[in-house]
Amino acid sequence: MATPSSPSSAEYTSFFQSLIPEESIGAKKIQIDEFTRKHAQNNTRVVLVTSGGTTVPLESRTVRFLDNFSIGTRGATSAEYFLKQGYAVVFMHRHRSLQPFCQRVDRNILDVLTVTEGPETVITVSPSHVKDLAPVVKDYHKYRDQGMLLMVEFTTLTDYLLLLREAAQSINNLGCHGAIYLAAAVSDFYIPPEQMPEHKIQSSEGPRHLHLEMTPKMLKPLVKEWAPKAFVISFKLETDTSLLVDKAKKALDTYHHQVVVANLLETRKTEVVIVTRNSEETLKLSDSDVLSGREIESPLVSRLVEFHHQWISQNLK
Amino acid sequence: MATPSSPSSAEYTSFFQSLIPEESIGAKKIQIDEFTRKHAQNNTRVVLVTSGGTTVPLESRTVRFLDNFSIGTRGATSAEYFLKQGYAVVFMHRHRSLQPFCQRVDRNILDVLTVTEGPETVITVSPSHVKDLAPVVKDYHKYRDQGMLLMVEFTTLTDYLLLLREAAQSINNLGCHGAIYLAAAVSDFYIPPEQMPEHKIQSSEGPRHLHLEMTPKMLKPLVKEWAPKAFVISFKLETDTSLLVDKAKKALDTYHHQVVVANLLETRKTEVVIVTRNSEETLKLSDSDVLSGREIESPLVSRLVEFHHQWISQNLK
Repeated sequence: MATPSSPSSAEYTSFFQSLIPEESIGAKKIQIDEFTRKHAQNNTRVVLVTSGGTTVPLESRTVRFLDNFSIGTRGATSAEYFLKQGYAVVFMHRHRSLQPFCQRVDRNILDVLTVTEGPETVITVSPSHVKDLAPVVKDYHKYRDQGMLLMVEFTTLTDYLLLLREAAQSINNLGCHGAIYLAAAVSDFYIPPEQMPEHKIQSSEGPRHLHLEMTPKMLKPLVKEWAPKAFVISFKLETDTSLLVDKAKKALDTYHHQVVVANLLETRKTEVVIVTRNSEETLKLSDSDVLSGREIESPLVSRLVEFHHQWISQNLK
Repeated sequence: MATPSSPSSAEYTSFFQSLIPEESIGAKKIQIDEFTRKHAQNNTRVVLVTSGGTTVPLESRTVRFLDNFSIGTRGATSAEYFLKQGYAVVFMHRHRSLQPFCQRVDRNILDVLTVTEGPETVITVSPSHVKDLAPVVKDYHKYRDQGMLLMVEFTTLTDYLLLLREAAQSINNLGCHGAIYLAAAVSDFYIPPEQMPEHKIQSSEGPRHLHLEMTPKMLKPLVKEWAPKAFVISFKLETDTSLLVDKAKKALDTYHHQVVVANLLETRKTEVVIVTRNSEETLKLSDSDVLSGREIESPLVSRLVEFHHQWISQNLK
């Protein structure tokens, strides 16, 4: 019998048929296909990084929605380290979530800009901020100019799922050189379209009940049908330690992908567990690491790249 | 009998008692009090602008929440025009929503920065962007250096409500020279704390029902108790034309404040209706206005400032 976490093929097929694609999905698919084709020709490894939360509209002309907590730090930071490891990155992210490199710029850049007027007006960054900002600008320009970073946006759960399918199929064309790093925080619940009012729910209608259905787990078709050749890394975020590694192992058994990165909400910036079918490895930043500005995504991505490399060697034997 | 839109004093009092304040609220209150006191001494008018959506957590250690659609364009843009009209602005906004002036900077500023290395490395803005960016930087610096703009953040509905009470009471100290411009998109619904699980809801628990209670309308205590002397402007955002002006008039009858700005979701960037107890005035941008970059907040804030001025004259008679 199918459990909520392992939908049958028919279940997710009919779920997918109920989704209404955004207009721009065709254009996004073309961009991703061109990007992966170009890098396949150069034998560059490509990783699809998903990042940020998804929204679930409560009304079809939407004012209100359900959201997941994620500004996208994990995804944006990991994308930078994948680039530094020589990967080309499809950065599939929630609209307005954090972006690689850009996330390093002070939130209010206006505070550090100075206007010098003259025959030619010039705007410069305050000297005190040049040391921190110059490497960020240079890295960003380098990867941008080399065409190593493709930005693709989503907002709703529907946008995310339909785009993920296209992007995963595109990554699959790279064979074992493709990787998928599922750092987005995807809603476990959705509201069936037939239960959604067209107009804004009137507050005068009084208290409300919302019925949320379970989103079918897309990891199954992703691994089995969309990208069976790719190296797939999923995340487990929990708030309860006791469930963490068990749930990661169970996910690997259920979906047959390569790696689960398990983490707790409270310690996710300093500690992660890399779980594979036959290993379990904790990475943890020390206090002095944290003070020196080291980020957990640096050792995490390094280890994942090693795992990917081993896996490529096995596949090419 | 109390209807959902007009809570009795006891109802909102007990609702407020159930809210758990964030740690930083005391510090924020001190900042706002100092800001309003300073501007009261200089006879500067002060407006409290609220901006962005609120979140309603579904779990107490929160991963998921309900959200309202608003990146805060209305609030951030209006704050700029209030500053240009000589007002000091308390900009009470959702964390990571748009900010005055800063919203005008290209989303990826890194694209327009250039690093020139040398004995002294310099970072400059590309000449092609100087024309647009220089006035933004100069305006921002002017109001910042004059101490005319105070930024205060909230995230959840609870943070918003508790902060609004403090800020409104502070504005009230300015008498009729204070104004409150309620552009934030506040959730009409909340989840009672006793119904909220501590840990992340497990997706294995299957489909879920959410019971949402109505948020008491805070406009009533705001006008009656917190800021009875202030000039208060609220917003009505609807998706259905037929309800728009009627609902605005009804709100004025119920809450006894000065102005409702009514707008439709689809046309909110080009058309608003300013509704007072004895007038109803539509402001609309023409196509050529839109092409020339004119914003509806420019005539909107100008008219509101005129209304506020008239109202001050009547009050000081």
